[in-house]
Amino acid sequence: MIIMKAEATKEEVANVVKEIKKYGLKADVSRGEYRTVIGLIGDERKIDFSHFATLSGVREAMMVETPYKLISKEYSRRFEEEGERRRIRAGNITIGGDDLIFIAGPCTIEGKRQLFKIAESVKKVGAHILRGGIFKPRSSVHSFQGLGANGWEGAEEALSWLHEAGQKFEMPVITEVRGETQIDLVAKYVDIMQIGARNMYDQDLLTNVARKDKPILLKRHFGAGIDEFLSFAEYIAAEGNKDIILCERGILPVGKGKNYTRYTFDLAAVTAIQKETYLPIIADPSHATGRRDLIFNMSCAAIAAGASGLMIETHYNPSEALVDAQQMITPDELKEVIDACQRIYKLIAHQQKT
Amino acid sequence: MIIMKAEATKEEVANVVKEIKKYGLKADVSRGEYRTVIGLIGDERKIDFSHFATLSGVREAMMVETPYKLISKEYSRRFEEEGERRRIRAGNITIGGDDLIFIAGPCTIEGKRQLFKIAESVKKVGAHILRGGIFKPRSSVHSFQGLGANGWEGAEEALSWLHEAGQKFEMPVITEVRGETQIDLVAKYVDIMQIGARNMYDQDLLTNVARKDKPILLKRHFGAGIDEFLSFAEYIAAEGNKDIILCERGILPVGKGKNYTRYTFDLAAVTAIQKETYLPIIADPSHATGRRDLIFNMSCAAIAAGASGLMIETHYNPSEALVDAQQMITPDELKEVIDACQRIYKLIAHQQKT
Amino acid sequence: MIIMKAEATKEEVANVVKEIKKYGLKADVSRGEYRTVIGLIGDERKIDFSHFATLSGVREAMMVETPYKLISKEYSRRFEEEGERRRIRAGNITIGGDDLIFIAGPCTIEGKRQLFKIAESVKKVGAHILRGGIFKPRSSVHSFQGLGANGWEGAEEALSWLHEAGQKFEMPVITEVRGETQIDLVAKYVDIMQIGARNMYDQDLLTNVARKDKPILLKRHFGAGIDEFLSFAEYIAAEGNKDIILCERGILPVGKGKNYTRYTFDLAAVTAIQKETYLPIIADPSHATGRRDLIFNMSCAAIAAGASGLMIETHYNPSEALVDAQQMITPDELKEVIDACQRIYKLIAHQQKT
Amino acid sequence: MIIMKAEATKEEVANVVKEIKKYGLKADVSRGEYRTVIGLIGDERKIDFSHFATLSGVREAMMVETPYKLISKEYSRRFEEEGERRRIRAGNITIGGDDLIFIAGPCTIEGKRQLFKIAESVKKVGAHILRGGIFKPRSSVHSFQGLGANGWEGAEEALSWLHEAGQKFEMPVITEVRGETQIDLVAKYVDIMQIGARNMYDQDLLTNVARKDKPILLKRHFGAGIDEFLSFAEYIAAEGNKDIILCERGILPVGKGKNYTRYTFDLAAVTAIQKETYLPIIADPSHATGRRDLIFNMSCAAIAAGASGLMIETHYNPSEALVDAQQMITPDELKEVIDACQRIYKLIAHQQKT
Repeated sequence: MIIMKAEATKEEVANVVKEIKKYGLKADVSRGEYRTVIGLIGDERKIDFSHFATLSGVREAMMVETPYKLISKEYSRRFEEEGERRRIRAGNITIGGDDLIFIAGPCTIEGKRQLFKIAESVKKVGAHILRGGIFKPRSSVHSFQGLGANGWEGAEEALSWLHEAGQKFEMPVITEVRGETQIDLVAKYVDIMQIGARNMYDQDLLTNVARKDKPILLKRHFGAGIDEFLSFAEYIAAEGNKDIILCERGILPVGKGKNYTRYTFDLAAVTAIQKETYLPIIADPSHATGRRDLIFNMSCAAIAAGASGLMIETHYNPSEALVDAQQMITPDELKEVIDACQRIYKLIAHQQKT
Repeated sequence: MIIMKAEATKEEVANVVKEIKKYGLKADVSRGEYRTVIGLIGDERKIDFSHFATLSGVREAMMVETPYKLISKEYSRRFEEEGERRRIRAGNITIGGDDLIFIAGPCTIEGKRQLFKIAESVKKVGAHILRGGIFKPRSSVHSFQGLGANGWEGAEEALSWLHEAGQKFEMPVITEVRGETQIDLVAKYVDIMQIGARNMYDQDLLTNVARKDKPILLKRHFGAGIDEFLSFAEYIAAEGNKDIILCERGILPVGKGKNYTRYTFDLAAVTAIQKETYLPIIADPSHATGRRDLIFNMSCAAIAAGASGLMIETHYNPSEALVDAQQMITPDELKEVIDACQRIYKLIAHQQKT
Repeated sequence: MIIMKAEATKEEVANVVKEIKKYGLKADVSRGEYRTVIGLIGDERKIDFSHFATLSGVREAMMVETPYKLISKEYSRRFEEEGERRRIRAGNITIGGDDLIFIAGPCTIEGKRQLFKIAESVKKVGAHILRGGIFKPRSSVHSFQGLGANGWEGAEEALSWLHEAGQKFEMPVITEVRGETQIDLVAKYVDIMQIGARNMYDQDLLTNVARKDKPILLKRHFGAGIDEFLSFAEYIAAEGNKDIILCERGILPVGKGKNYTRYTFDLAAVTAIQKETYLPIIADPSHATGRRDLIFNMSCAAIAAGASGLMIETHYNPSEALVDAQQMITPDELKEVIDACQRIYKLIAHQQKT
Repeated sequence: MIIMKAEATKEEVANVVKEIKKYGLKADVSRGEYRTVIGLIGDERKIDFSHFATLSGVREAMMVETPYKLISKEYSRRFEEEGERRRIRAGNITIGGDDLIFIAGPCTIEGKRQLFKIAESVKKVGAHILRGGIFKPRSSVHSFQGLGANGWEGAEEALSWLHEAGQKFEMPVITEVRGETQIDLVAKYVDIMQIGARNMYDQDLLTNVARKDKPILLKRHFGAGIDEFLSFAEYIAAEGNKDIILCERGILPVGKGKNYTRYTFDLAAVTAIQKETYLPIIADPSHATGRRDLIFNMSCAAIAAGASGLMIETHYNPSEALVDAQQMITPDELKEVIDACQRIYKLIAHQQKT
């Protein structure tokens, strides 16, 4: 849609119409008392609206279509491609199906013994998928970077433990892939490839991970609006891979004075995203809050908001962990979380309206 | 706490210590390998840290104490003044007690008939307190400003309807007071005085409303961190009125691209605030999301987060309303919300840990 | 403008058109390949778009007009009411005219001697208007609140000093008015009434200060977009008072990790606002940065951005000040700032394009 | 620094001290009236403070040191390694030296003729370095992605044009590298490697680009605080490459209502960063504002803020450009910008205080 300035001339309007036609779209001009508005008829996503905004006489040029299409419910409905929610298979588990899915495990794999001990305990209390970080994104180059930093051999060893733990305790496994050169190696060992919040905008990584034809868990960048989050999921879908699990993990806090959580957990986004796309969305209260004492309530709240599952960092002894100790809970606490979430899910599952 | 620059001299350190003593506090100097840190011993809230930051040799000066005290659990525990949660009475209702409290009613009172019809219907489905806007804060001077804009007589008439509706349907009533000159009039007719988000920083209003000795519902400003929200609640408590009901109603959205909710509903703040203060906190999903189709899930999520109640805008025919029609639900929908929330509350009430 | 859902029926479109007509506007329906868009013909500012968003079949409803009109260049041009920039008189000074205007003085008036000493020194180095805080808005009830907190007599005494200093050193004077009950008193003594950032949303205060028919300096709230800032200036203009000086003073910082300034100084807003309105806009680098060592560069940058003047907190001995010591500069430093700004202004004044 | 809860026991304090020693640092305990604070003596950057925050009795754990060291002025001063500003050589040009540096060229290279025509014209008006995008980061997968999207051959052809234009018009050249697999190819043809805002957090990319031993232009992510921006520059320095040119290009806008610029141009960050690090910082008003009509003032403001140069998108016919047309200026306009900036620079260069 192009909005002309009040003082725009007929020639300026005609010029905008001519430009629209160049893109293969049609123009619909409506003259108002105060200004003229030109509607675009056709696929607006092909257009660079900033181009139109520079034309003489133009006040504003903006997209009315959404910038994503392949993953949108609106388009899907038209072609009856996907139902209400896409069911994504990983090993023996379905995400987006009738059951809540819990992904648990340590923030970072520190050793085989640590990983197996945690894997066993989270399985026991009801977790479905095992997580464990190998290539850790960190703010400071001076912090511990995960075993992935010990050269490719160190990384492969950690990956093999993860794979083995998954086999032993019958859980599909997931880890984060942080750069293009890690893709092949990670794909060999895991069931789900995670793209972290900081890499959400890395379109080369998205495109190349998509080609592995494995389910992908895509975390929302802490600076991304919902619109942009879905636009980058579209990069994956554009490669023909729609097995995308979205994950809300907190956005930048804003406000004068101090805040008491690491990020702002945007739970309304969980509900709103489910109205836009058929892709399932889960939530990560561990990173969103950074506070162990908020995990119970925030997990319950995320399920009440309609999340299809949760990713929760778990450790048998949080204060021993080298990374993110502050936000991990114990397997016993995880059990309480899972139990409460399952009961809330039963209460509201049939009542949600999309 | 004062952190000195690496290159600070002994004289500069001595000068800072001298300044600290002027305020009646003691200084505790610890010299590190890289820099010297000076701790303050005494009530830091008396101090203007920006003053210290200008002194020669100082790198950073910051408060370690919280800027609030009267309403903090930490101070309260020491003197055993308040328990886990303060119980606030309004008419026959207790906020912060064993039961969830639902405040419902129209965004804006448009007429007596409209108000009574809504009051009757929300009471029937389980609401406890009746709300209705009279003095409406609006972004544009050209929008409808509520009946409060029809001179004092118009305002008083609307207030009397609200009072009468409360009597008839046995609900305490609440409305917003937007300026100091409205305080006396509003206090005559309502059980709870509301201070809206936009006025949260208006310390004169807070102080003067506090003196009316009625319960006050204080909404968080959309640009306020938790710290600052509680600091302004402290202005009310400083007048001797601790009957303060806090209300989370959404903060400024942040993120590239478009967001799909009016504000970001900060539910982790609900949980975190309950760990800082004994004051009860409720949530307002109507203003936070601005979307009728998100109210059900966000209400359930707020209760799961630990809110003591909800404020929800309700109208028998939302599309007839002159203000905020987009976010109102019908009494039937309110019933579903209340039922689901009550059941979630029963599930988790005993499991929250503060 | 109303955008209908792809699946909207003819009846739904017809219903929206009917609703538009109720408001006295005309509707212009254009049917696209993917969806139907309905343009509004008439004054959109009368309309509550949230109302339309609730109607069946509607995807989005939004304003295309600006929410302000009386202060906009676009409307002004049509009626040739105002030129490029409105010239506002205060005593012997013109803001928005050919000369840069510097407002200087202490953050807070602490005594007569302090005020006169500062007044004399800022006049000597080229300041035009004298500022001094009496009613101080503070985050913590436990901090020093200004002499205005010493009852009405204390406030009036401080106001009389300010007035007297203005007379003696031939400078119009300005102070902040924080609440409605202070208006009459403040108006008796000052030439310009300041409404602080925290009160920008207080429409009752704006309306009542406007009626005093004195120039008003309106600071942008730290959580307000440009659009909203101008909408609240419109509240003043709606009372018939267009002597409004806008002031950019920093918005909420956003970003992971620590920031090194108190607020984000939004200098592009200074330039952009000058394209929207004929009202002059100045900038306040003291509050925006909170750092004395950034004042010189940020003052120069603000003038380069096109500001009509600056407000700078000044003190002969910043570290003695009780409030905001960290951001004040000395009269000698002010001289350097004024000199550099004047030279930059000469360089670029003729080159700005609006 | 570790701040203990008011109610922390002696044993809890002792336990924290024990943990600190494990990291090879010393602990300095100071007991206050209200709480105990434990200072860390040694290199705090080795520590994961979130670990400490989970320990029993701890209220808060935070870093007092900066998370960067190699690039900080404070550390540099101690070892007298770098002066006030590091001089970075690229071809015959020095960034961070005595002269302002202007980087200009099209947003995106669309063809050889377009590039050469622009290169010639920007050289003529005083630009020093030629820019041109090949691998374009875009929000929508449906938008034009640059010639880099035409397979490696298309990318190499565009790179060779850029190299050739640089030779012909005697300007070092710069382009963005968006993924690890592009590094070798890009390094073959350009003098300066650019890492875009969206990739700022991509530590693998940073590390691998750093190893090419070419100057790197690192743009600030729109969601990064100053602290975090510098922490990621430290990733480059940690590889032994200190030829880092920082670039401010706007951060996420925040504020209720509409803003009138694409991002918030954080010019105070330019000044503040120069006080923290010896690395030169330039500014990019094109991306920061997204508005051609703000470029002149914002360029002048950036130089007044102390920037060592500017990057400005330029095109002989902006409305012809396929990407970001809205923000490009013509070579004639660039000439006006450069002239005004040079004059402002002369005025203030000797007056800045760091």
